[in-house]
Amino acid sequence: MRNLIDIVDFSVAELKELMDVACDIDMRPENYRERCKGKKLATLFFEPSTRTRLSFEAAMLELGGSVIGFSDASSCSASKGESVADTAKVISCYADIIAMRHPKEGAPYVAAKNASIPVINAGDGGHCHPTQTLADLLTIYRQKGKIEGITVGFCGDLKYGRTVHSLISALSRYNNINIVLISPDELKIPDYIKEDVIDKNAMTYTETKSLEDAMPSLDVLYMTRIQRERFDDANEYERLKGSYILTPEKLQNAKAELSILHPLPRVNEISVAVDQDERACYFKQVLNGKLMRMALILKLLSETDIEEKREADVVKNKIRCSNPRCIVSVEQELEHIFKPVDKANGIYRCVYCESQSIEKENN
Amino acid sequence: MRNLIDIVDFSVAELKELMDVACDIDMRPENYRERCKGKKLATLFFEPSTRTRLSFEAAMLELGGSVIGFSDASSCSASKGESVADTAKVISCYADIIAMRHPKEGAPYVAAKNASIPVINAGDGGHCHPTQTLADLLTIYRQKGKIEGITVGFCGDLKYGRTVHSLISALSRYNNINIVLISPDELKIPDYIKEDVIDKNAMTYTETKSLEDAMPSLDVLYMTRIQRERFDDANEYERLKGSYILTPEKLQNAKAELSILHPLPRVNEISVAVDQDERACYFKQVLNGKLMRMALILKLLSETDIEEKREADVVKNKIRCSNPRCIVSVEQELEHIFKPVDKANGIYRCVYCESQSIEKENN
Amino acid sequence: MRNLIDIVDFSVAELKELMDVACDIDMRPENYRERCKGKKLATLFFEPSTRTRLSFEAAMLELGGSVIGFSDASSCSASKGESVADTAKVISCYADIIAMRHPKEGAPYVAAKNASIPVINAGDGGHCHPTQTLADLLTIYRQKGKIEGITVGFCGDLKYGRTVHSLISALSRYNNINIVLISPDELKIPDYIKEDVIDKNAMTYTETKSLEDAMPSLDVLYMTRIQRERFDDANEYERLKGSYILTPEKLQNAKAELSILHPLPRVNEISVAVDQDERACYFKQVLNGKLMRMALILKLLSETDIEEKREADVVKNKIRCSNPRCIVSVEQELEHIFKPVDKANGIYRCVYCESQSIEKENN
Repeated sequence: MRNLIDIVDFSVAELKELMDVACDIDMRPENYRERCKGKKLATLFFEPSTRTRLSFEAAMLELGGSVIGFSDASSCSASKGESVADTAKVISCYADIIAMRHPKEGAPYVAAKNASIPVINAGDGGHCHPTQTLADLLTIYRQKGKIEGITVGFCGDLKYGRTVHSLISALSRYNNINIVLISPDELKIPDYIKEDVIDKNAMTYTETKSLEDAMPSLDVLYMTRIQRERFDDANEYERLKGSYILTPEKLQNAKAELSILHPLPRVNEISVAVDQDERACYFKQVLNGKLMRMALILKLLSETDIEEKREADVVKNKIRCSNPRCIVSVEQELEHIFKPVDKANGIYRCVYCESQSIEKENN
Repeated sequence: MRNLIDIVDFSVAELKELMDVACDIDMRPENYRERCKGKKLATLFFEPSTRTRLSFEAAMLELGGSVIGFSDASSCSASKGESVADTAKVISCYADIIAMRHPKEGAPYVAAKNASIPVINAGDGGHCHPTQTLADLLTIYRQKGKIEGITVGFCGDLKYGRTVHSLISALSRYNNINIVLISPDELKIPDYIKEDVIDKNAMTYTETKSLEDAMPSLDVLYMTRIQRERFDDANEYERLKGSYILTPEKLQNAKAELSILHPLPRVNEISVAVDQDERACYFKQVLNGKLMRMALILKLLSETDIEEKREADVVKNKIRCSNPRCIVSVEQELEHIFKPVDKANGIYRCVYCESQSIEKENN
Repeated sequence: MRNLIDIVDFSVAELKELMDVACDIDMRPENYRERCKGKKLATLFFEPSTRTRLSFEAAMLELGGSVIGFSDASSCSASKGESVADTAKVISCYADIIAMRHPKEGAPYVAAKNASIPVINAGDGGHCHPTQTLADLLTIYRQKGKIEGITVGFCGDLKYGRTVHSLISALSRYNNINIVLISPDELKIPDYIKEDVIDKNAMTYTETKSLEDAMPSLDVLYMTRIQRERFDDANEYERLKGSYILTPEKLQNAKAELSILHPLPRVNEISVAVDQDERACYFKQVLNGKLMRMALILKLLSETDIEEKREADVVKNKIRCSNPRCIVSVEQELEHIFKPVDKANGIYRCVYCESQSIEKENN
């Protein structure tokens, strides 16, 4: 059984295959209309996300399949205390594939370990949202004709934006990617992303506070929203927010072939006036997201007999995960499992939420 | 692209065509079972309305299509601040036609201006609910064999009842319609309906407080509910409410061929005992509503290449809409657009909610 | 029209027929994939129950049909005061069969009396949940090869557990069933179940507080959850709860061919470690539930022309039901109907909720 929990579960070759299938679906949809006939997708959304849910549902319906599910936790058995593991086992009796959104980090991983059908992570708290990254990658691929050798600017909240972190992770596996990180000091990218992803993969990057300064160099601009709640000082937020709102004026010195991406929903971080600009690709991203989800569903349903690579070298119940947003903090009778990142220095990561733990003593 | 935002978007000839298709669907459903195969309806219900939503869903399924959507705002991206315009653009990537219910007046109009697929207004606040009017018209047509030359009584809350206002608007385009307005003083029909609709179209009407007095003259009785909240004086409500509850007794001097309509849900304004009466047509109305929605979906999907008539002569951002229930009060970066009703006297209406504005000075 | 409101609506022969069809569906699903093509199931869930709802939806989809509905009362017309009777009439215009979950006892019965399509009770308050019992029966049948002549232990909350009461009712119609009732004193089975069901049908039974003591004799163990709220004394709950949690240790002296059932969701009343045990059948029960719902939908849709046996000898509006959880306590204009159980002693039962009333005087 193959699953998609984290974007790195797929190789670059597999991503290429998915993108090619997505393009073929877009050109020849009639070839795919019966491909999932008789198959059922379960959309298990423990927190609401209409756009993502409807994208999955449209994807399955366009493949000729059908959909069951729920759209928020209040109308699901979790409110009666059912574990994610049990839910996954139960839903395996009803459907052929699961798309799960959950507020706890690692919940889709737990589901994948217990389900007898493939599981797709449709967003687990602040952790991962790999199908958004699939949409981002396809948009870059279709706009640029390639993913290698481009300069990608990330603007806004680079500290908490999981779509930013996931896309950087994904891009780190392609050659000659140059990253420009555009944010206020308060929302700079976390050090572990710089160290574990950017530096480790020898990507080049620059950091700046100015969107205008960065603009001329960019092939792709990935916008995100800055939320008031992220600032201790409301005045600081008010002073800054205008700098990170994309307007037609700020685009004046941009490349003619720039591609503007945004994971949506946007509130006001991109002016509506920019929508008319040919460089605005965020609604194309929506379409691309649906196409990649179709390709993904096809791939996972065709590989149910492939054994997923096992976590070979893990440590069970010796280290405890202290991340309060991790699924182990709520799911009963769940083993605490860590995988070594750097055994010499005793650095481990939780297999569910990827939080790091440093074991000073012998474990 | 054609849409249905207001019942007057369709000509009398088009209404006739819809009713004839609806009757044909009822007689020969097997001819329609695959007509929307591969098509998707998005039911975007920003406030709950089970009956209307399920009617649309049943309609689409009986045409061989499928359905995606949401049933209340809490589980949709609007709760994250997404505009109606963006939602419409996003959903255009997922579906082939939209049915939208929204608490703000004019929201489906905004959706229609931004979607690349047809939009049906499934109720926008107190403003319009045109598919209910389609159900009402078909019920009259099937019961009477015609719509011209009949006496239609409206009973109950004629002040706030949007279904009453819409049906009167629709009927005003047919010949020889006589209206009887039956309500307490507190809930009389607004003057602008009398002036702009009834008088302007030379309909005849009478007003009365007594349902019993009006009964013998009626070919159609359209019942609505009187809500306690509409009265400042609770005693007055208690004193009055019985007069506007339809019972078998009150039907004693009614015509044998009277047709009783109600938009449902009813609470107690029609006694359950009346359900047995052959003149009760409110459950037939439910079936007719589904049939008209089927005919409407077929019509709009077949006319996606027809250009909608443009608002030729509008005023942008010079007059501001002050209606707090209008979509412009909440949607960001939305132009305030007014169309002239009576330029000489400076009378304009908001294109979203149709609120009137009188510009005393030169605009 | 046939409905399934209470498990006793079906004869033992009919249950056998359903179980045989369910087994055939499991073996030859391809024979059933188009059986409900063009048919619609309405899932009317006035309170949430994901597992039951999704089981019905998966069942209908696997038969080639489609589904409309709602998953909680807040997004349905009931919140506007619509009666269950009206909802049933309206939905009869949209769908071919109804599955209804409702917090009020007897609501599906009211729906069945008003709908023109078959109604399945998907749980009505603490009253009945017959499709769970169908799942339980099929699981026993498939595990044991028969239902007669077995010893069935019920453990946990035997006072409030409606699934326990329903399964005992169903089993009472089979030969040589031996019941072992395992519970703390606070949660013993109600006397009326002992008198009306167990004694009346000459079943043998024993009562015990000890799961360990009971274990060796059991062919089937039906586990249920003990809720803290059921105890006046929290200390008493804490002291007791461990005794009724099933662990691998407690299974040590169980039969090798024991079958462990649980209606799910479980919280902690069965340790996750038991899941690995081959005797654990609770996830098989989930699959069996879907298969029985498929068989049930097929049966009811094929018997819409069969007249249901009438309540011959009932008393209308002479006795009033005083059960605050009965649908008559909220539904307007509903007749209070009682059927005699023991006329000599003036014992009657409400037809909706089956509450007993004793009429001392002449009624």
